Order: sequence, then structure tokens, then C-alpha cells
Amino acid sequence: MPNKWGANKSLIATTPKPPYYAFIFCSHQNADLEGYAETAERMLELAAGQPGYLGVESVREDLGITISYWSDLESIKQWKAHAEHRVAQKMGKSKWYSTYKTRIALVERDYGN
Amino acid sequence: MPNKWGANKSLIATTPKPPYYAFIFCSHQNADLEGYAETAERMLELAAGQPGYLGVESVREDLGITISYWSDLESIKQWKAHAEHRVAQKMGKSKWYSTYKTRIALVERDYGN
Repeated sequence: MPNKWGANKSLIATTPKPPYYAFIFCSHQNADLEGYAETAERMLELAAGQPGYLGVESVREDLGITISYWSDLESIKQWKAHAEHRVAQKMGKSKWYSTYKTRIALVERDYGN
Repeated sequence: MPNKWGANKSLIATTPKPPYYAFIFCSHQNADLEGYAETAERMLELAAGQPGYLGVESVREDLGITISYWSDLESIKQWKAHAEHRVAQKMGKSKWYSTYKTRIALVERDYGN
């Protein structure tokens, strides 16, 4: 069902055979989320157009977990350095997120139904 | 805030310096969740007592993401093979989850505030 995050929010990402990378971002939000929803939606759109992007999964209750998947470390590095993304990261750290943690992980194996 | 998942549901896991492993489990649920909540809570408790367990993060909207962190692959292997966990996995696959995907990933780097 389409929503503010875009149609892909509630789907399990379709990723290629490992190895590939997971960019795991966990956060708690502050009360004042002015501008957040628009930026989050824009970042998902923008990420999806970057070289090496493979997919995303994103869920929030109190804790939010967003995992984006990438073909290699260089793609993650370029995405982190993207000018518009850098502005969003700065807003997140200074305004939207009370606590956050990023983990960069090499997916060695996956399986499912 | 304590809830059916236990007090840790909404916290970012406190993990040691990398490298360590992430066991990423994504799923969509079926309508009939009889027995699910109790089993999910029990599995979180049980996992927390296993050798090599480092922490967990778990969130669900339509999509559910649960990431448990482990010191090494052998610990994950033992947890997957745990008798009570195997029964729960079987119930999940046959009854509770319409789709699911598991990814095993080596966390190479992490950072946060």
C-alpha cells in the first residue's frame, strides 16, 4: 500500500545473491519532526537512483530501522557523500533523531521463502 | 516501555566494537497469529541467554524487521539449531509468516551518537 515512504515501505527487498552490503540505520526520533516526512521520502527516492543501490526495508514504531542494500562499499561511500543526502544527515543528527546508530555489514548469506 | 516483546523492543542495541554478526530477519505475517506473541517473547528471552548473543532490535508495521547481534557465526549456528528455537522456526514458516527473508551479515563498522 503506497504511503508517505513510497510503495516499497512494507516489502521485503529483492536482493541478488550474496555477497552485498547492508547499511543498517536505527534511530529514535524527537517530538519535533517538522520537515522529516518529506525529506525521508525524498531520500528513499534519491537512494533508489544511486549506483549500486539494491533495495530498502524500513519500519518504525518507537524505534525505527531502515536497511538499505548496496552492491559494494564504494556505493555506500558515494551515497553518504551525496550533497543532498549530507544536508538530510545533518538535519537528522541536529534535529530529528535523539539517538541513532549506523552499522555497515557484509551480507554473506541469505535465504527465505 | 515494557511490552509483549519485553523491555528491550524499542532500544538500539548496545553492541561491542566490530567485527560482529547481524542476523537480519524480515517477515510479513499471516492473519492467524495464534500463539505467535508468546513464542516471539519466549524466543527473545531464550536468545538473550545464548552464548555469543550481543543484543536485539525489533520493529513491526506491515513489515517486521528483527535484527539480533552475535559475536560470531558459530553462535548463530548454535542458536538456529536450538531445539526450542527450531520448533518456533517451523511454526513461523508453516503458520505465522506469509513471506520471510533471513540475512546473515558481518558488521564491519558502526557509529552513532
